Amino acid sequence: MATTNVEAQDWLKSEDSKEYFELLKFQSVGADPDRLGDSARCATWLKKWLEKTGAEAELATKDFAPPVLFAEFKAEEGAPSVLFYGHYDVQPPDPLDQWLTPPFEPTLKGDRVYARGAQDDKGQLFAFLCGVREFVADNPGRINLKVILEGQEESGSTALSKLLPELKSKLAADVLLVCDSGAAAGLRPAIVAGLRGVSHFTVKLTAANRDLHSGEYGGIAPNAAQGMAELVSSLHNPDGSIAVFGFRDGIEPPSHEELRTAEATAPDESALRDDIGCEPVGGQLGRTIVQRNGFEPTIEINGIHSGYGGPGSKTVIPCEAIAKISMRLVPGQNPERAFAAVREHLENRVPRGMKMEISELTGGAAGFRLPLASPLFRLAEDVLGEMDDRGAVFYWNGASIPIVSALREISGAAPLLVGWGQSEDRIHSPNESFSVAQFARAKEWALKILGSLA
Amino acid sequence: MATTNVEAQDWLKSEDSKEYFELLKFQSVGADPDRLGDSARCATWLKKWLEKTGAEAELATKDFAPPVLFAEFKAEEGAPSVLFYGHYDVQPPDPLDQWLTPPFEPTLKGDRVYARGAQDDKGQLFAFLCGVREFVADNPGRINLKVILEGQEESGSTALSKLLPELKSKLAADVLLVCDSGAAAGLRPAIVAGLRGVSHFTVKLTAANRDLHSGEYGGIAPNAAQGMAELVSSLHNPDGSIAVFGFRDGIEPPSHEELRTAEATAPDESALRDDIGCEPVGGQLGRTIVQRNGFEPTIEINGIHSGYGGPGSKTVIPCEAIAKISMRLVPGQNPERAFAAVREHLENRVPRGMKMEISELTGGAAGFRLPLASPLFRLAEDVLGEMDDRGAVFYWNGASIPIVSALREISGAAPLLVGWGQSEDRIHSPNESFSVAQFARAKEWALKILGSLA
Repeated sequence: MATTNVEAQDWLKSEDSKEYFELLKFQSVGADPDRLGDSARCATWLKKWLEKTGAEAELATKDFAPPVLFAEFKAEEGAPSVLFYGHYDVQPPDPLDQWLTPPFEPTLKGDRVYARGAQDDKGQLFAFLCGVREFVADNPGRINLKVILEGQEESGSTALSKLLPELKSKLAADVLLVCDSGAAAGLRPAIVAGLRGVSHFTVKLTAANRDLHSGEYGGIAPNAAQGMAELVSSLHNPDGSIAVFGFRDGIEPPSHEELRTAEATAPDESALRDDIGCEPVGGQLGRTIVQRNGFEPTIEINGIHSGYGGPGSKTVIPCEAIAKISMRLVPGQNPERAFAAVREHLENRVPRGMKMEISELTGGAAGFRLPLASPLFRLAEDVLGEMDDRGAVFYWNGASIPIVSALREISGAAPLLVGWGQSEDRIHSPNESFSVAQFARAKEWALKILGSLA
Repeated sequence: MATTNVEAQDWLKSEDSKEYFELLKFQSVGADPDRLGDSARCATWLKKWLEKTGAEAELATKDFAPPVLFAEFKAEEGAPSVLFYGHYDVQPPDPLDQWLTPPFEPTLKGDRVYARGAQDDKGQLFAFLCGVREFVADNPGRINLKVILEGQEESGSTALSKLLPELKSKLAADVLLVCDSGAAAGLRPAIVAGLRGVSHFTVKLTAANRDLHSGEYGGIAPNAAQGMAELVSSLHNPDGSIAVFGFRDGIEPPSHEELRTAEATAPDESALRDDIGCEPVGGQLGRTIVQRNGFEPTIEINGIHSGYGGPGSKTVIPCEAIAKISMRLVPGQNPERAFAAVREHLENRVPRGMKMEISELTGGAAGFRLPLASPLFRLAEDVLGEMDDRGAVFYWNGASIPIVSALREISGAAPLLVGWGQSEDRIHSPNESFSVAQFARAKEWALKILGSLA
């Protein structure tokens, strides 16, 4: 729409947008060791920004990981303490050839900014920080506002997890604010009432000492590609349910009220179909989408690679295969026990003639659900009701912010997760984007919730 | 051994070895369209070599494929006609990082020459042609010797198959000689009594329109990596037998004599284990190695690729997956019917929410077995007995030379396949090699069998 674009062009001249674009240019892929320098430069840029805005800030890290940034806007004695968490790392940008504009050259088209991290989470966190800047300028000393930003959310929050014990006294707060989730359809405000946990690892199978001629050795040598296919397909039953003994141990099913509330704002199935371009038939047959995404665990094959993949053919028997596997966990599942069940399942099924190795186990965050009746949720509903006539909805997010469980425990704070993502943002996919309207909402939310907590 | 190396150093000064090294430098990967120019240069080099040696030679092709070379050393009226077949194309050299010396820079180490194609089939065919050169110099006009060389053996022999009808009158011969197979252990001479057929294709599964966040969409979107794992693992039963209905239709089991002859010279299981570095447990449980490799068909996954495969993790639900699949076929199996059975099997199992596409179907050669009692086999046994006190063995090769079935039919010739490969040559794998002794044997065989046929 022309009007929107004019607004977008105006916004493009603002300090907020200029700095946002600077932030998006850092190739802060936290999972990639080759991008460590980019992550460090990104964290340093954020530290300077926060210092300029009035905070005291410091960087820390462990084992040469992307740095953790802690900043504090100090307040008068007796002021409430609020902790804000965000992450400046982004997912790897590949497949690069599917990007219409380069992933680290933010580009405004229409009313959307395209870049890796445009939304997740650089966009959401920076819009929120722009709101913080306005709040502290108008309300100095009203809130003891602590900011913790990390560079490994997408790959297990290793450094921050290790730093938590020594940061404990600094992180103590009444409320934990996070802006890394989605709004409902049409940008209707949404409060996260639960998150799934996550854990991921790599499986490698080794058969022969080299790729072998499929004629000379066919019927003799075991095939690692076939072995891996059999191994990973054993993780699910034909109805899509998980076939791992012990994996579901301890699961706390949702209450009647939680299920009713969740189903009341369930995503529209045909909209989902349009969004993803195929039938939304992931997960177990016979369960609703809300159940499958919000209240059930998953085991996903994030990647499987073995043997030849180029043009034409290469008639080999592959000697190696890898699979990247992640699990989403729900409340009551113990991440370590769930992984142990999967490991045992895999170890019992190592294909004949092959060796299996499991590595790169990271994450291990539990899922959680928050009590719908909490006073903090009433306050948030009021603020969001002011921002939008439709009022807020509650939802149980299928995604994970692994560190939130840990931060909640160490800070003693009550979590309040409100974010402004939309499915068209395509986070984790090529051509990720964030709209000017979403940016404005996230900024307004920061201003209003801080005002209300002060 | 020092003596061997001295011999190798002497050989390195010969015209044979210098020209062999030139031939190995062409990157004639017939399956790779980017290497078409290299294939054409390689074929032109061979054409010039054959003309210099006294043949009339010509190149032909179809649809911009690597050229087919036909050459003829013409003989006196009434001389016997012998057709020699070989292929100058090689397998792709990847994985490149596992080569100790560059694949297209032939390198002599000890008494072995390392290069892609050092054996298969540039090494074997050129050693044979060096024998031809000596034979025709000493015996001009004694044999009407026809040479047909192609550049697509590893990828389906497309151009040669299409050219066969127009080459029919030129190819007519009494005997079809091929030097593209293995000798028995310790370089004991071996006559191929049967070959498996081959056919290969690519399967692609498409689920969503992009890779999706495994939290946001986990339990909603179908996973193409998991779908492909389920699809390809359905091709086999847990005992390793093939699970495709109709695939085995028509199989002609080997005779008692064939089985007895094959088992008498069966490869040693512990030597095989040392060779491949793992238990030789491919194929169906409860059948012998000779049965599984020589007389049973296979379906092999040559590659499977989907989603993330880099360092660390990327928690996506992959939207696409490919698998490269090849089949080895035995006498009585019709390649088209066997593929149709596999296609139907796959089509009946397309995972929920996904689309399947089958492409790059090539090959489709039937397997064959030759009568053990033929006079040509007696002649070959005599020649090979002169070359080696141990005498020749017969074997049924698990590999395929798809075009041999077609050439046999169109030329009317009786096939005689004797080659000098050894498992340590690592054909189709990194660090392929061919020894000076093997080269010498292949050359001697050419000289002696031509002398015996003249």
